[in-house]
Amino acid sequence: MASIPDLIKKKRDGGALSDEEIRTFVHAVATDAIEESQIGAMLMAIWLKGMVQEEIETLTREMMSSGEVMSWPEEWAGLMVDKHSTGGVGDKVSLVLAPALAACGCKVPMISGRGLAHTGGTLDKLESIPGFNVHQSAAQILVILRSVGCCIVGQTETLVPADRVLYARRDTTSTVDSLPLIAGSIISKKGAESLSALVLDVKFGLAALYKDLDGAKELAQLLVKVGNALGVRTAALLSRMDAPIGRYVGNSLEVIESLETLKGRGPDDLMELVTTLGGLLLEMTGLASDLSEGRRQISDAVIGGAALSKFQAMMQAQGVANETARSLCSAHTDYYGVLRRSEHQMELKTPADGVVVDVAGLTLAEVLHKLGAGRSSVGGPVNHSVGAELLVSLGQRVKKGESWLRLHYEVPVPSPDQINRLQSGLTLGSRDHDTPTRTLVEELLFQ
Amino acid sequence: MASIPDLIKKKRDGGALSDEEIRTFVHAVATDAIEESQIGAMLMAIWLKGMVQEEIETLTREMMSSGEVMSWPEEWAGLMVDKHSTGGVGDKVSLVLAPALAACGCKVPMISGRGLAHTGGTLDKLESIPGFNVHQSAAQILVILRSVGCCIVGQTETLVPADRVLYARRDTTSTVDSLPLIAGSIISKKGAESLSALVLDVKFGLAALYKDLDGAKELAQLLVKVGNALGVRTAALLSRMDAPIGRYVGNSLEVIESLETLKGRGPDDLMELVTTLGGLLLEMTGLASDLSEGRRQISDAVIGGAALSKFQAMMQAQGVANETARSLCSAHTDYYGVLRRSEHQMELKTPADGVVVDVAGLTLAEVLHKLGAGRSSVGGPVNHSVGAELLVSLGQRVKKGESWLRLHYEVPVPSPDQINRLQSGLTLGSRDHDTPTRTLVEELLFQ
Repeated sequence: MASIPDLIKKKRDGGALSDEEIRTFVHAVATDAIEESQIGAMLMAIWLKGMVQEEIETLTREMMSSGEVMSWPEEWAGLMVDKHSTGGVGDKVSLVLAPALAACGCKVPMISGRGLAHTGGTLDKLESIPGFNVHQSAAQILVILRSVGCCIVGQTETLVPADRVLYARRDTTSTVDSLPLIAGSIISKKGAESLSALVLDVKFGLAALYKDLDGAKELAQLLVKVGNALGVRTAALLSRMDAPIGRYVGNSLEVIESLETLKGRGPDDLMELVTTLGGLLLEMTGLASDLSEGRRQISDAVIGGAALSKFQAMMQAQGVANETARSLCSAHTDYYGVLRRSEHQMELKTPADGVVVDVAGLTLAEVLHKLGAGRSSVGGPVNHSVGAELLVSLGQRVKKGESWLRLHYEVPVPSPDQINRLQSGLTLGSRDHDTPTRTLVEELLFQ
Repeated sequence: MASIPDLIKKKRDGGALSDEEIRTFVHAVATDAIEESQIGAMLMAIWLKGMVQEEIETLTREMMSSGEVMSWPEEWAGLMVDKHSTGGVGDKVSLVLAPALAACGCKVPMISGRGLAHTGGTLDKLESIPGFNVHQSAAQILVILRSVGCCIVGQTETLVPADRVLYARRDTTSTVDSLPLIAGSIISKKGAESLSALVLDVKFGLAALYKDLDGAKELAQLLVKVGNALGVRTAALLSRMDAPIGRYVGNSLEVIESLETLKGRGPDDLMELVTTLGGLLLEMTGLASDLSEGRRQISDAVIGGAALSKFQAMMQAQGVANETARSLCSAHTDYYGVLRRSEHQMELKTPADGVVVDVAGLTLAEVLHKLGAGRSSVGGPVNHSVGAELLVSLGQRVKKGESWLRLHYEVPVPSPDQINRLQSGLTLGSRDHDTPTRTLVEELLFQ
């Protein structure tokens, strides 16, 4: 059997690792039988030399098998679905989509992540709801899926241990943006959920991992291939990520916007993502005859209130007090009676007359991150109340001095420089046709 | 200041690190302020992307400065010399050269290493002498240099801590054979010895790190440049490493051959290396007017017995009992009265009549290594008594069935396969002119 230094050397020299060699590496990572420096060297060799398709599929499969692989009751066969996003600004799709899918008859064991760097984490958003517990064992997940149909939880201790090790190391060794490592990490976790169908929201644009469509498409194609190779029907959607999704950014604020959406008052862009992603899954599972039928079912579940009921039941199943859950889901909630509101708000004013051409999602996210909405180290704290409300829409005509952004902050207070950065994120044009027509969903990919 | 992930990213992308960036990395390594996985990733990035000359010089200087830098009495200015070899089979040059240089008026604070893989380590050889203590503090080194003029010791705790970390990690992460890392490791340690002059024996050939002259020459040129950049007059010799140097290979056996050489009965190839390397140093320090005068002085010191006296004094200063040291250095020693002889010997026979064309040093070293002469892990044990005596010379005419190799072994006993490998290392030709004329020392390099 090849030794770890032999494997590193082979990849270093651009060779393709055999199934057995990849198994040796992943097993060593999962069982702590490899030196940390060797993990770093192998990650860098993979980053620089890449992997061929077969290596990536083996890596993903071995990572998946490094821990528990979930199993479901026979009667759920074909109904197990999940969605993964590569990360955006104001991306609260999961909070609406999971209950909508459950309302349509799917089982959704959604395992999400926390935010790091400028992108928010679904778990952080949910934890702004008092009592919401994202830590659920495999057995508890089964119970919740049986009674509710969906849950949104953190990675369990027993699931894909190899990924927990590699994921943390990639961040500190500058080996995050490697196609084989991204695919291995994302798909191994979804594979361990034993899904029937998976849909991926791969984002491109100024506030996304990939700035251009080509890079995102390459990743999306790879993910679709690897997912299908692991036996999960997988499709991907390529969606634009420049301006924030919806109007609210920040943990508590995004929960509010999600609840508003589940009450039928959601913004168009969020609804488009939810219905397209959900529609794809319903089509893949056969619960809908085609995409448009799937979109309609999801839309009905959201607009009609069935998804809201599922969300309320999910909150209760995941530890939120009945009274709290009921209050959040009532038609006319005082959200700040339940969710903590930041101590301070300030409104930013438009610097001139004009038409809103762009709001830079990345700039907004980076400033909010510094103000405490995101974390700067793994396991660090998050201030759930920090965030921003966009008070204008793209294409809207504004007068000089109108409020366009409401910033929710505490300590640290925004510096003049940060205010300037936020202001520079607003682009005004002089005429209506300065607003480019942007397609939110650029392309759908199946195998 | 750049963070460690930023530095790794820059090197990963092929950028040249600034002086400050290299300082940040080396300081973090020396003070344990970097994750092991980050060390591995950076080593791999350096291996794959290389470093420009300026980076290598800065890396070396910062490594040198990561710990204590020795200082010497003013009256020794210009006299401090050392030699480094990239590693060979039967390479006992240091044991003869250090006392010869001391006998010629130099001060030689020789800091040597241990063997790993197939090449032997000077410290292991010396430790086959009962009582010899290679662990000496900087203060003790000063005392020994004052009284004797030379010492051969292990790296002290306080010298070049960054190298101790990186050197060990390079082995397990398959990043050993990287020019910047080799240069940094070798020259930083020599720089910390505050030498006046340094000579490098860079080997090429089948039993060397570099199989061909070009690769070895590239390394030699780099080492000479970096050494001089750090203020040490540095020269290099490119020498062939195919057949073993001298006739004895193995720790105790090489001590015996070194003592025989110091008694004026050394083999020609060993004497050529000793006089050339020593002659270069005497020329560089100005103790000799030119190389041939330097070679003559070294040769006189070895043949005339002055070097032997220095070796005896060095042994005593480094812990060997006076009686033992005296006995080893007497004209007609029973070496095995002092050094442990292996329990078993066997003689290998020539398979045919012919002329000895080649003896494969690498094969011999690899088999001896497996038989216990070398170590398989850092800090592992070595059997000092295991080794081999070559009973024939290159170019010698032999009859079928003559003894050509005497193997000294204990447990494990040599397997039939190992015997076959050793036999295959002997190449016989049919006529005298089958023996190629080989130049041992191919080239000398100065800046």
